[in-house]
Amino acid sequence: MSFRVGIAGVSGYTGIELVRILASHPGVAITWLGAGKAAGEPLGATWPGVDLGLPVGPVDAAAIAAACDLVFLALPHGVSAPVARDCLAAGVRVVDLGADFRLKDAAAYAQAYGAPHPVPELLAEAVYGLPEKHRDAIARARLVANPGCYPTATAIAALPLVEDGLVDWLVADCISGISGAGRSPGPRNLYCEVQESAGAYSPAGAHRHTPEIEQELGVPVTFTPHLAPLRRGMTATVSARLRPGHGLDTAALRARYAARYAGHPMVRVTDTPPASREVRGTALARVCPVVDTARGVVTVMSAIDNLGKGASAQAVHNMNLLLGLPEAQGLPTLPEYP
Amino acid sequence: MSFRVGIAGVSGYTGIELVRILASHPGVAITWLGAGKAAGEPLGATWPGVDLGLPVGPVDAAAIAAACDLVFLALPHGVSAPVARDCLAAGVRVVDLGADFRLKDAAAYAQAYGAPHPVPELLAEAVYGLPEKHRDAIARARLVANPGCYPTATAIAALPLVEDGLVDWLVADCISGISGAGRSPGPRNLYCEVQESAGAYSPAGAHRHTPEIEQELGVPVTFTPHLAPLRRGMTATVSARLRPGHGLDTAALRARYAARYAGHPMVRVTDTPPASREVRGTALARVCPVVDTARGVVTVMSAIDNLGKGASAQAVHNMNLLLGLPEAQGLPTLPEYP
Amino acid sequence: MSFRVGIAGVSGYTGIELVRILASHPGVAITWLGAGKAAGEPLGATWPGVDLGLPVGPVDAAAIAAACDLVFLALPHGVSAPVARDCLAAGVRVVDLGADFRLKDAAAYAQAYGAPHPVPELLAEAVYGLPEKHRDAIARARLVANPGCYPTATAIAALPLVEDGLVDWLVADCISGISGAGRSPGPRNLYCEVQESAGAYSPAGAHRHTPEIEQELGVPVTFTPHLAPLRRGMTATVSARLRPGHGLDTAALRARYAARYAGHPMVRVTDTPPASREVRGTALARVCPVVDTARGVVTVMSAIDNLGKGASAQAVHNMNLLLGLPEAQGLPTLPEYP
Amino acid sequence: MSFRVGIAGVSGYTGIELVRILASHPGVAITWLGAGKAAGEPLGATWPGVDLGLPVGPVDAAAIAAACDLVFLALPHGVSAPVARDCLAAGVRVVDLGADFRLKDAAAYAQAYGAPHPVPELLAEAVYGLPEKHRDAIARARLVANPGCYPTATAIAALPLVEDGLVDWLVADCISGISGAGRSPGPRNLYCEVQESAGAYSPAGAHRHTPEIEQELGVPVTFTPHLAPLRRGMTATVSARLRPGHGLDTAALRARYAARYAGHPMVRVTDTPPASREVRGTALARVCPVVDTARGVVTVMSAIDNLGKGASAQAVHNMNLLLGLPEAQGLPTLPEYP
Repeated sequence: MSFRVGIAGVSGYTGIELVRILASHPGVAITWLGAGKAAGEPLGATWPGVDLGLPVGPVDAAAIAAACDLVFLALPHGVSAPVARDCLAAGVRVVDLGADFRLKDAAAYAQAYGAPHPVPELLAEAVYGLPEKHRDAIARARLVANPGCYPTATAIAALPLVEDGLVDWLVADCISGISGAGRSPGPRNLYCEVQESAGAYSPAGAHRHTPEIEQELGVPVTFTPHLAPLRRGMTATVSARLRPGHGLDTAALRARYAARYAGHPMVRVTDTPPASREVRGTALARVCPVVDTARGVVTVMSAIDNLGKGASAQAVHNMNLLLGLPEAQGLPTLPEYP
Repeated sequence: MSFRVGIAGVSGYTGIELVRILASHPGVAITWLGAGKAAGEPLGATWPGVDLGLPVGPVDAAAIAAACDLVFLALPHGVSAPVARDCLAAGVRVVDLGADFRLKDAAAYAQAYGAPHPVPELLAEAVYGLPEKHRDAIARARLVANPGCYPTATAIAALPLVEDGLVDWLVADCISGISGAGRSPGPRNLYCEVQESAGAYSPAGAHRHTPEIEQELGVPVTFTPHLAPLRRGMTATVSARLRPGHGLDTAALRARYAARYAGHPMVRVTDTPPASREVRGTALARVCPVVDTARGVVTVMSAIDNLGKGASAQAVHNMNLLLGLPEAQGLPTLPEYP
Repeated sequence: MSFRVGIAGVSGYTGIELVRILASHPGVAITWLGAGKAAGEPLGATWPGVDLGLPVGPVDAAAIAAACDLVFLALPHGVSAPVARDCLAAGVRVVDLGADFRLKDAAAYAQAYGAPHPVPELLAEAVYGLPEKHRDAIARARLVANPGCYPTATAIAALPLVEDGLVDWLVADCISGISGAGRSPGPRNLYCEVQESAGAYSPAGAHRHTPEIEQELGVPVTFTPHLAPLRRGMTATVSARLRPGHGLDTAALRARYAARYAGHPMVRVTDTPPASREVRGTALARVCPVVDTARGVVTVMSAIDNLGKGASAQAVHNMNLLLGLPEAQGLPTLPEYP
Repeated sequence: MSFRVGIAGVSGYTGIELVRILASHPGVAITWLGAGKAAGEPLGATWPGVDLGLPVGPVDAAAIAAACDLVFLALPHGVSAPVARDCLAAGVRVVDLGADFRLKDAAAYAQAYGAPHPVPELLAEAVYGLPEKHRDAIARARLVANPGCYPTATAIAALPLVEDGLVDWLVADCISGISGAGRSPGPRNLYCEVQESAGAYSPAGAHRHTPEIEQELGVPVTFTPHLAPLRRGMTATVSARLRPGHGLDTAALRARYAARYAGHPMVRVTDTPPASREVRGTALARVCPVVDTARGVVTVMSAIDNLGKGASAQAVHNMNLLLGLPEAQGLPTLPEYP
C-alpha cells in the first residue's frame, strides 16, 4: 500500500519536477494536484504531454486533507505558511519547498522577506530539511522546511569545515541556472536578457538565502549568487583561511569529508571539481575539497541540480524520512547525459 | 597615413576578434595575416564571409617585418616568444596575446608552463599590458605582454583594494565563457559536454593565471576559475576582509574606485553588479564594489568580454598606446544587445 | 553635414540594434530617441552602458519633426501608422520597421492583424523596403515599409526562382532566433521554456508573414516558421519542383543567382549552405541554391540576422537609399565571430 | 528472471542514453558493457558519477555471447555489421543503432556510405525497427536495424500520407540537436562554432538518411537537415500537395492520424505544433497534421528526442518487441521539464 501525496504548485518548475520524481517512486502515489492561477486547467495545458489523470484544483487544505497523507507545498513565500498550518491541523504532514519555515527566527524572516511571519507559532516545530545535518529530527517531524538551493549547495560544501572548527568565515560564490529565478517573467528569465551572459546579483548579504546559510553554518558567510545561462544546475565554491595549526592537506581533508558523508547516500565526495551536469536531474550533491597548503586556504566545490538536490529531489528525500520509507527510495541518481 | 599591422594566429578566436576591431580602426591598416595549420588557406575558409584581400601566410618574422610596423601574436605559449624576438630585432613592435612575457620571473614561467622560458633575455624589457596600471610604460615599450583574461578581470576588481592596503588576501571566483578554452577540440569546448553545465576547474593555485594575478596584485590570491555555457564573457567576484579601522562604506569605496579609474576610458564603475552581456564585444570593464559593513568584508564584481578587454580589444588598446594614437581610438564601447 | 535621424521604440530589440548601427554610421547623427513605456527613463536604464547623451521621450510627431530629417519607427503594428502619417505631414521621411505598410491591400491587413488599417490612404504611397527588389522606388520614397524578417529571408532565397517562372509553388521552412518574439514576456521568450527546444508554430498560412511573402513572390507559398534557441539569426529553406524542361543544374542556377544579385551589395551567393552565425550582426544575406536533378527539385537556403538584414540593418540600408547616401555606407558586413 | 543485455559503444551519446533507460527497466539487467577507444577505463571516467559495477571491455562477440541474451550495437557504420554477424551466430539477438542494416539494397548502402557492405548476406533478414510500421516483423526478428533519427521523425509525420496515397512527393525539413553530430570533435559540435547559430547542411539528397527515408516512405522526398543549438531534440516539418479530390480538412486528417496510430503507444497526435522539449528524454513522438485547404497543401509537424525515439529509446522499444516483453515496458514517456 502506497502513501498518498499531493503537490500544491504544480505549474511551477519545482512542482513539475516533483511530478517527474514521484511518478516513478515505488512507495507513494500522487493523489492530489493544486495550483494558483493554473487551477482548473488540465496539467497538460501547462506541461504538454503530462497527464496524471488528476484535476488541478485550487490550493485548499480541506481538499488536501481528504486526499493526502503528505503534501508538498511549492508555493510563494507567505502563501505556504497558512496552508501548512491548516494541513497539519488536519493531520497531513507537510514538506514546504518555500521559504516560510527555514529561518528559526521570526524577526530574521521579517527582515529578509519584508513582512511579519504569517504563522510564527510553527517555527519552533518546523525542522530544517537538510538530511545530511538533521536526518533524525526530520524522521520525527510533521513539518519540514525544505532548504533553499544556495544554502544546500553551500552547506554540503562547508559543513565539515565548520563542524570541525577549521574556519571562522567563509566566502561562498555560487552559480545558478535560470530556473532558480522561477517562472514569472522578468529581466532574470527572459531568454534574450540572460542567454550569453553571466553575472552576480544581490551581493554583501543582500540575498535572502544569506541568513539561512549562516543559520545552518554558524559562522559569517560572504555569499554572492551568480546567474549563468543554463536551465538547471548549481555550483558553490567555498573558500576560507584554515585555522592555524590545522595540519591538513588535500588528502587528509578529503578523508574527513568522506567520513563525514559516509552513510549519507546523496553526497559523493570527488577527486576533481564537479560540474553541474554530473548531477543533472538527480538528488545528488557532488563535493570536492582541496587544500592550498602554500596559502593556508581551503577551497571546496560542490555541484547540485538546483531543482533536484536543491529543491524537489531533496523534498522527496525528506518525504522518505518523514514517512519511514527507505532513505534513498525513488531518488534519481543517474545524471542525464549528454 | 596609417600604421601597418599584422596578425599572427588569425584562425583562432582572439585572431578573428582582432580582425573585427582593427578592420574599422581609423589609425591602422591590416597588412599581413599569418596562421599555423591554417596557413595557405583563404581566411574565408576558416571564417566564412571574411575576406580582407590578404593571403594567410605561415608565421615568419621576415614576412612580418616586410609588411608591418606592429604585429599581434595570437599564438600558443612557447611559440610566440621566438617570433617576438625576431620581430623586435627587425624593428617591428609586438603585442603578444599569449603568455610568454606576462610573468617577470623565468622560474615562475617554467613552473606554470612546464618548460624553460624560450627567450628569457626579453623578460625584463616586456611590459605587462594592463593600461590601468602600466599605461606610461606601455607607451614607451617595444614589446607588450597582453594580460590573461582572468588576471584582467581580477585586477580591475582588486587593484584599488591592494594599492590602498585595504586587504591582505583575496578570494577571486571567476566565470569564463567557452571561447576561453580555445578552438582545439576537447572536453572543455565540445558542445554537448559544456552546454547546460557549469563548474570550477584548476582550483587552489593550479591555474596558470594564478602567478600572473599575484604578480600584479602583490598579495596572495585564492583564485578559482569556472566555466559556464556562453561563448564569450567573463566575470570576477573578489571578496576579502577589510583591514580593521578602514572606515569605509559602499559609497566611500565606490568614490575611491571612481577616482582610481578616472581618466581610464575603458573602465566603468557601476552601482549594480555587472553582467557580462553589458560589455559584450567591447573593450570595456565594468566594476562594482560593495562593502558589507556588518561582516567587515568587501566584495567587488567585475565583468569583461574575455575576447574583448580580456584579450583582443585590450591588445588594440595597448597598440594605441604603443603607436601614440589616441588611447580610446577604434575601441568598441557599445555592448552588443540583445 | 550629417542627416538627423530619430528612433521611436528604442527600448526594443530592433531599436537598440538601430542605435548600434547608426552610432558608427558616418552619414547620419542620432538626434532623437523615443519609447513607449520606457519614455522618461535614461537609455542606460534599459540598456546598461548605452548613453547617447539624449533623453528618451514619448513618441510624438511634433518632437520628431523638430529634431529629425528621417525617423525609424520600431513600434507595435497599429501604433506606427498614425505616427508615420503625422511625421510625413511634417516633412520627415519614415522607415517603418513594423507591419503597418507592408501589405498593399487594406483588406489583407485587416484579416492578418485583426483590425482595420489605421491609415489606409498611405498604403499606395508606401514602398516595400526590400532593396533587392524595389531599390529605385525606395530611393524616391517618403515612406518605406521595412520587410518582415521571414519575408526577407524567404524572398532573397526565392526571388530568382519566381522571377524566371521556374516554380509555381514554394515550401519555405524558416528558423528564427528568440529575439524575433520580441521583448514582452511570454511562453515564446521565457528562458526555461525555449532553451533546449525547437519547434514549428503558426503553420498552414496562419502566420502574419504569409500574405507578405506571397505578395512579394507572386506564387502560393507554404510557409512554416520555427523557433530555435538562439538570440538572433534566421534561416530559410525553400524547396520547389522545377518547371519541366528547365534544363538547370546547380552550377547553372548558381550562375543565375550570381547574376541576379550582382550589384546588390548585401547579398552573397555561396557554394555551401549558410549558417546564421556567418551573418551575425550584419546587414547581409547569404544564399545557396542547389538543384536535385534526380528529383527535379530546387532547394535554396538563405541565412540572415533577423535583427540585421531582417530588421534594423535593412532599415538603415533603406535609409541610405532614401537619403541618397552611398548604398552600403555604414552597413555592418563583418560577421561577429566566434 | 530478467533478460541479460549488453551495450557496445557505451562511451557515445546513444550508449549512455541506453544505460539511463535500461538501468530502470524492470524486464532486463545490463550485464555487459563495451567500447572502442574507451575500453579498459571505468565507465565513470567517461561519464562522471555513472557506475554500474561492470567493466568496460573491448567489443568482442565471444564476450558478448557469454554475457548477453541481446546486445545493442552503438558503433560506427561499417564496424557494427561484422559484430552483429558474430553475435547472431552465437545466438545473441541484436539491435543495431548504426546504419549498417537499415538499407535493404547493398548497392544503395555502398553509394551512401562509400564502401561495400561488410555483411550483405544479412540484409534480407534484418528488420527495419520502426515499430509503427514493422511491429510484427520486429517481434519475429533476430536482427533489428534501429532507424536513423531523421527517418524516424519524418516517417512518423508522413506514413499516414503515403499509405493513403495522398501525396506523391514530400518536402521534409528537419532540425536536429547537436548530439546528432556525435562525440568526435569537429566543426559541427564545437561549442563556439554551433552555439548561437542555425543552418542547413547536406541538401538535395546528399544526406545519408535520404535513401533510408525514401525506402520507408516509397515516394521521392526532398530532405534537408538543419542543426540548431540544443543538445538533444529533433523536429520534422513535412509539406506536400494533396492529391486532387482528397476532400480533407484538418479535422478529418487528424482523425486519420489518430486512427493510424491508435494502438501505437509511443505516438501522440496533437492539436498544436509540437516542440522538441515536449518529448525530451522520452521514447515518444508527437505529431500534428494540418491541412491548408486554400492552397491544397498538407503540413505535418513531428517532434522526437533524437537520442530517445530517434535512437536509444526506440532501440529499447525494439528490444521489448524482440524479447516478447510488454511493448511499452520501461520506456520513458514523461518529458523532462523544465
